Amino acid sequence: MKLQLALDRLSRQECFDIISETHGDIDWIEVGTGTIKEHGIRLVKDIKDAYPGKTIVADMKICDAGRHEAELAFRAGADVVTVMGFAGMETIRQVLGSAEEQGKRVMVDLLEVTDPGRVQQIHLTGADLFCLHVGKDRQTSGGQHFGEQLPLVAGLDHVDLAVAGGIGPDDLPSLRKLGVGIAIVGSHITNSRNPGQAAAGLAEMLRRTDGKRRNL
Amino acid sequence: MKLQLALDRLSRQECFDIISETHGDIDWIEVGTGTIKEHGIRLVKDIKDAYPGKTIVADMKICDAGRHEAELAFRAGADVVTVMGFAGMETIRQVLGSAEEQGKRVMVDLLEVTDPGRVQQIHLTGADLFCLHVGKDRQTSGGQHFGEQLPLVAGLDHVDLAVAGGIGPDDLPSLRKLGVGIAIVGSHITNSRNPGQAAAGLAEMLRRTDGKRRNL
Repeated sequence: MKLQLALDRLSRQECFDIISETHGDIDWIEVGTGTIKEHGIRLVKDIKDAYPGKTIVADMKICDAGRHEAELAFRAGADVVTVMGFAGMETIRQVLGSAEEQGKRVMVDLLEVTDPGRVQQIHLTGADLFCLHVGKDRQTSGGQHFGEQLPLVAGLDHVDLAVAGGIGPDDLPSLRKLGVGIAIVGSHITNSRNPGQAAAGLAEMLRRTDGKRRNL
Repeated sequence: MKLQLALDRLSRQECFDIISETHGDIDWIEVGTGTIKEHGIRLVKDIKDAYPGKTIVADMKICDAGRHEAELAFRAGADVVTVMGFAGMETIRQVLGSAEEQGKRVMVDLLEVTDPGRVQQIHLTGADLFCLHVGKDRQTSGGQHFGEQLPLVAGLDHVDLAVAGGIGPDDLPSLRKLGVGIAIVGSHITNSRNPGQAAAGLAEMLRRTDGKRRNL
């Protein structure tokens, strides 16, 4: 299982500080939606320039203008962009098309998606990386657990699964059992007094639950 | 009817050039989603600082982290933020709450929303400004017309309506008949060889179809 560090609600400097403390223990670096909106796509470029060996996820949460927004992120050096599962199919198609042309990847964010038929349709359009996602606001309001979204992806072949939403070390064993390939961790690391230690703890937990990591 | 200029796919300089050529003929200035992601929220601040008398719409297309993203935009000087109609209800509630605290407004973007019951629920939560929206990608693929979304808002009281999606001067009379309060115009102005002339033409058309403008 890969560990994806999500950078949300942070200044530019805090992003770089946290990456510098954690980069040995994380696999993918996600620049969060609010972080991109606050600091601009340039931050994605600066992180990629500083860590060219890392997979950079631009959490664009694309809703429209699929090709334009995907190219904006890919041009900045992103390796993966996110598109909303509830965006129009033409938007999702444009994002997938742009990624294919550039040898990059698309993560489909299943936030607020409830219809397995919809996910099947997106899969048939070429998507192979889905993110089960309990939104921050729903976490706070004590709502849904990511397990509730599992039926959405049941039976999809050759698909990589990511999970986001309040993930901490205790969740890793069950995520592994569910076949999740990417654990997305934000506040457990970024709100920690010692992000390096928090990331190291997660990485150690991953090594224990996971003989060898999946090659995504 | 108000005229909202949407700034999409433009450099910072182009945004300022177009505003300087059109500001006498437009009412609201929208900083587009891709434009915010590209240049960062600072652009909203710089436009508000340069045109403090104008209503600035930050087209954040909020999907999650409602309070955080709304505050990001309001702090930068936005008077209106957009939230996706398909976002979680808790997210929409947070955005509305943040706007109420700050005496600002929320525009609910109905892109890809098809259920009138959903719109009714959002309205009951306190939303009073909705945007009928045919996405850029759907326009290109020759799909839906904004008229198809009208049933979504039929029967809602005390609601202001905006319409976005490939709007040009020929659409204004029918928008007025439909009771639309805000015509959102992007490429007809921004892709014009003479944005000032394009905006003036729209404003003249509005004056002709619309004795006095609605006070939103």
